[in-house]
Amino acid sequence: MTVRVAVAGASGYAGGELLRLLASHPGVEIGAVTAHRSVGRPLESVQPQLPELAGRILLDTCADTLRGHDVVFLALPHGQSAALAAELDPGTLVVDCGADFRLRSPAAWERFYGSAHAGYWPYGLPELPGVRDELKGTTRIAVPGCYPTAVTLALFPAYAAGLVEPEAVIVAATGTSGAGRSPKPEFLGAEVMGSMRPYGVGGGHRHTPELVQNLSRVAGERVTVSFTPTLAPMPRGILATCSARLRPGAPETEDEVRAAYTDAYADEPFVQLLPSGRWPATAAVLGSNTAQVQIAVDPDARRLICVSAVDNLTKGTAGGAVQSMNIALGLPEWLGLPTNGVAP
Amino acid sequence: MTVRVAVAGASGYAGGELLRLLASHPGVEIGAVTAHRSVGRPLESVQPQLPELAGRILLDTCADTLRGHDVVFLALPHGQSAALAAELDPGTLVVDCGADFRLRSPAAWERFYGSAHAGYWPYGLPELPGVRDELKGTTRIAVPGCYPTAVTLALFPAYAAGLVEPEAVIVAATGTSGAGRSPKPEFLGAEVMGSMRPYGVGGGHRHTPELVQNLSRVAGERVTVSFTPTLAPMPRGILATCSARLRPGAPETEDEVRAAYTDAYADEPFVQLLPSGRWPATAAVLGSNTAQVQIAVDPDARRLICVSAVDNLTKGTAGGAVQSMNIALGLPEWLGLPTNGVAP
Amino acid sequence: MTVRVAVAGASGYAGGELLRLLASHPGVEIGAVTAHRSVGRPLESVQPQLPELAGRILLDTCADTLRGHDVVFLALPHGQSAALAAELDPGTLVVDCGADFRLRSPAAWERFYGSAHAGYWPYGLPELPGVRDELKGTTRIAVPGCYPTAVTLALFPAYAAGLVEPEAVIVAATGTSGAGRSPKPEFLGAEVMGSMRPYGVGGGHRHTPELVQNLSRVAGERVTVSFTPTLAPMPRGILATCSARLRPGAPETEDEVRAAYTDAYADEPFVQLLPSGRWPATAAVLGSNTAQVQIAVDPDARRLICVSAVDNLTKGTAGGAVQSMNIALGLPEWLGLPTNGVAP
Amino acid sequence: MTVRVAVAGASGYAGGELLRLLASHPGVEIGAVTAHRSVGRPLESVQPQLPELAGRILLDTCADTLRGHDVVFLALPHGQSAALAAELDPGTLVVDCGADFRLRSPAAWERFYGSAHAGYWPYGLPELPGVRDELKGTTRIAVPGCYPTAVTLALFPAYAAGLVEPEAVIVAATGTSGAGRSPKPEFLGAEVMGSMRPYGVGGGHRHTPELVQNLSRVAGERVTVSFTPTLAPMPRGILATCSARLRPGAPETEDEVRAAYTDAYADEPFVQLLPSGRWPATAAVLGSNTAQVQIAVDPDARRLICVSAVDNLTKGTAGGAVQSMNIALGLPEWLGLPTNGVAP
Repeated sequence: MTVRVAVAGASGYAGGELLRLLASHPGVEIGAVTAHRSVGRPLESVQPQLPELAGRILLDTCADTLRGHDVVFLALPHGQSAALAAELDPGTLVVDCGADFRLRSPAAWERFYGSAHAGYWPYGLPELPGVRDELKGTTRIAVPGCYPTAVTLALFPAYAAGLVEPEAVIVAATGTSGAGRSPKPEFLGAEVMGSMRPYGVGGGHRHTPELVQNLSRVAGERVTVSFTPTLAPMPRGILATCSARLRPGAPETEDEVRAAYTDAYADEPFVQLLPSGRWPATAAVLGSNTAQVQIAVDPDARRLICVSAVDNLTKGTAGGAVQSMNIALGLPEWLGLPTNGVAP
Repeated sequence: MTVRVAVAGASGYAGGELLRLLASHPGVEIGAVTAHRSVGRPLESVQPQLPELAGRILLDTCADTLRGHDVVFLALPHGQSAALAAELDPGTLVVDCGADFRLRSPAAWERFYGSAHAGYWPYGLPELPGVRDELKGTTRIAVPGCYPTAVTLALFPAYAAGLVEPEAVIVAATGTSGAGRSPKPEFLGAEVMGSMRPYGVGGGHRHTPELVQNLSRVAGERVTVSFTPTLAPMPRGILATCSARLRPGAPETEDEVRAAYTDAYADEPFVQLLPSGRWPATAAVLGSNTAQVQIAVDPDARRLICVSAVDNLTKGTAGGAVQSMNIALGLPEWLGLPTNGVAP
Repeated sequence: MTVRVAVAGASGYAGGELLRLLASHPGVEIGAVTAHRSVGRPLESVQPQLPELAGRILLDTCADTLRGHDVVFLALPHGQSAALAAELDPGTLVVDCGADFRLRSPAAWERFYGSAHAGYWPYGLPELPGVRDELKGTTRIAVPGCYPTAVTLALFPAYAAGLVEPEAVIVAATGTSGAGRSPKPEFLGAEVMGSMRPYGVGGGHRHTPELVQNLSRVAGERVTVSFTPTLAPMPRGILATCSARLRPGAPETEDEVRAAYTDAYADEPFVQLLPSGRWPATAAVLGSNTAQVQIAVDPDARRLICVSAVDNLTKGTAGGAVQSMNIALGLPEWLGLPTNGVAP
Repeated sequence: MTVRVAVAGASGYAGGELLRLLASHPGVEIGAVTAHRSVGRPLESVQPQLPELAGRILLDTCADTLRGHDVVFLALPHGQSAALAAELDPGTLVVDCGADFRLRSPAAWERFYGSAHAGYWPYGLPELPGVRDELKGTTRIAVPGCYPTAVTLALFPAYAAGLVEPEAVIVAATGTSGAGRSPKPEFLGAEVMGSMRPYGVGGGHRHTPELVQNLSRVAGERVTVSFTPTLAPMPRGILATCSARLRPGAPETEDEVRAAYTDAYADEPFVQLLPSGRWPATAAVLGSNTAQVQIAVDPDARRLICVSAVDNLTKGTAGGAVQSMNIALGLPEWLGLPTNGVAP
């Protein structure tokens, strides 16, 4: 059985990565590829890395072109998914890589996005406790943000095990593909190469409420999050460095803490808890759906430091989307997804 | 049917890329992985990007560990292959990623390598006319150098069609993985980032005689080659910019020249002759076995300019090796080899 | 005595580099800094690397704001300099970093720029024989293109000494600041990092006629040029790899050829002919007005290979402009110009 | 008056940057340049970016070659400074860029360095309250670590003003020159480009006790520090992202907090407190002695986030060393030090 999939937003970075993964997915046939400004152009003119799909023409992003597929991936700016999804057959699996359906709280949505809340769809982070069951058989999936994927995988086992206090401090570095493909001077190569800089400092980044939602869900209490994203001189990858104070009375040796992580990730095909002493690196997960995770205890600061590395476009977006699609459709979760990275 | 393969030199960059490709090759089972200084260490400590192979231990590189496999890949410094191959069963397919068996001419070998010529094995560049037949059923393959792969694919159709004079001028840029993994100060990140520099200028690079051999073979006359390699601030990729004077009387419009390339590459699964106006980029072939090729005619200088881009570790080494293995074993040539790249 | 200078186009990369150099030039006081779209904004918002000039406001680029200065630097898109210069006092030294007045030949201008020829001004490459005298006391200077600076310094001594044939083949790599600051998708960091690609292949780059003009001037005959520019993943720098066939009967040992270069550059403060065996690197000239030059003879191909490295924004644009200003004003040629680079 | 300076360790990155700065310092004459393994080689073979010093020969690093200078800079691995300094004239100003004399606490030294404490010298971070007076007229200076320079400048005004709790969380990214010039596989260009990774996680980095010392000094109480350094794909630069909880009752608007920073940095020539809304970037301080600083208050997490960017080799090492030398010698503090950066 082969499912027929469409990709809306196929001219962007997330769309290109979806197509790369779907083109080698044995259970999938690629149907419509759509865009906005590039409508009518050959796909290869905007995704030159995909010769297998050479000859495809970018269609208009609308319900007419997206209908008639078993699965529709939306890789669009936020605010466009709800209307499109409403026009599609309810039985079509719609996988939204945008933000529209990630937050449960209308108040949080309105505060951070300044518009009306569209709703909440099953959240495509299968490793989060309870989520896999929500995804099975669903026809609507909200793919997590790239930072929330990296940060949640680094931190949630500590919260699930009650090891740390509900105040997380997170500094994450992202490759510049995270800023998307629309040209702005501050993302020119000449500006970003050789440079590290923060942005959205002070709690303003839109992934903050998603982090709060995920960590609070497993902690069973409200977790506050101090989140500072930084832009790193690389095309892809997220390195998330997270920490929180150890709870008084909680186990505080690395071995005890590691046990919580070993339990959480024992059967996860896409989370690699590294052996003690080895640390995640974004280069090691380039192009793969693997998240590398490692932890350390700082006895002086009495903090647990949790670090993860993901490819922001693969596990952080398109790979996570395909993984969730596999679950929703009843396919093997790992089907068509690389776990080995392209390094060096 | 699954063939059992060993990789000697598994701790280096070529070895790592071989393992990445072989791990997802449906006709292959990975047996011994061997090294020198890293013997006894887990593979994951030197190839952290390959979680699928976590748990493997690096064995010693010697005939004892390599025997009993259907295929043995050698990714070793030059000078070591002949002795090892001699100790293996003659029926074992030995694929040498080193230089030892690339040159037909003992004189050329001795001049550029300063040691005795080991011999000549069928040359693993299937796109070169006549080569595919030499590879079928062979038990010995010499994988081309990374530069010769890129340059030969850019230039040979022009020589095969008699379009250009037998004096080629080539300037090529390589990513720094081409320098290998043994640490030298001039390849430190702080030295190479932000820097372009040439090396081996004036005809001294050891890939020069291989270029002469390949181009002369198709030209039917001796082609001289001016080859200048340069080091570029990127981990992977080769961009080869090649040119030669148009022969007097030869066709000189781009369309006429293009016809020679269209003919040469019509049925090649791994060479992508780009549509007019689009140019190769190393980013577009990252991690893929595709070579992008494009040409232009300069009417003022009366030269044909031919440009190619390959991933030096994939099509330029490990991918080319697997492609040739497929042919030798009678498998589909494309089996297990990605043609889509990881971009951006 | 202090001269008062204005910089038009101060929000771009060339403008920023002019201001960096002028701010530490002991004979200069910076007056108006002007722009187009950024008029009214503080300079520091577009040139955050220049805290010494914090507080300056970008004025409108027009004769009114530029008048009343001893020197006016124009760092504008081509086509705008002639009209502005005409409105300035004839005694004002106008230094045009754009292309408008670089070409002597109206036909060449019209062919490559598609507009009417504005004229020819003394050419700001003091190292080129005869040019220094043209610059002394002039009130108009056309700053060379960045590629022509690098290429001409690499090749002209060979042509001046009659060593090589009048067909030069040039492949040059540039950092992405050469593409300027206006945002285009193909120059986004995510596109350029990890990637080498050519552009303007086949003789179409607008610096080609300038190369022909410079080399023909010293050769005393028409030199044809095959020029292929490539984009390299670095912010700054040009590496030019140039070659030409040795003339029959010309000296052909490296020592003999080197003598021509030693003569040409014996007293040049900004050209560093490297000792035999060391090669130029763009990192070594970052932020400096130095051009590194080296040569090699390829006895098999009978070609001379000449390589140079410059910082495209310093010696390649702003530094060359200041150097020529110094000459025009009768100041020491080296005043205010760094020769040491910022490395690693 | 010109002082005569020697640089020990002139073949390394810190040594090269010292020479770049000293070569353009108007009050300085460069005497001996010394090394270990490169003794007898021309300086230009290891510092090709310094043509002004071409012709210098690297001498042996020993008291004999260093004697007879007014100032001796030591850019050596830790453990070598004490013995050398003891052999020099007590009146010679010795500026140690290594770690040996940075820590007051013998216990902290022994814990982090595993050897006997050499002592404590006046600490070359003039911006830290009280330090400038210690530096005036001294003949011994301990240059701060690169991370402590960046972090202390970001955080100390908040501690000096009593705004935050004594538990700081710091994640900093450094360019790879911070790892020095001795070749190790993990710092090869192919490994670091495209990759972010942490190291020394959990409190083990040797700069941690220096951070504790600096922050505790201004806070007047023991400050614990959670410090995670990360390696970024760039040659130079440190971006330090620091945060701490706001004290109950402390001012908590950005304006109130900013006032503490405005006070601290009002007269500092090398600290640039950015206007609200602009954030530090390492590219903006490349090659300059400027530290950019910015702050934000996160009202949800009730934390103050303080970010700084420095060039690790300039303000973070060699520039800070020259700045402190200027103070010790009674020269203007800013003499010979660039504040404008080389960007883009």
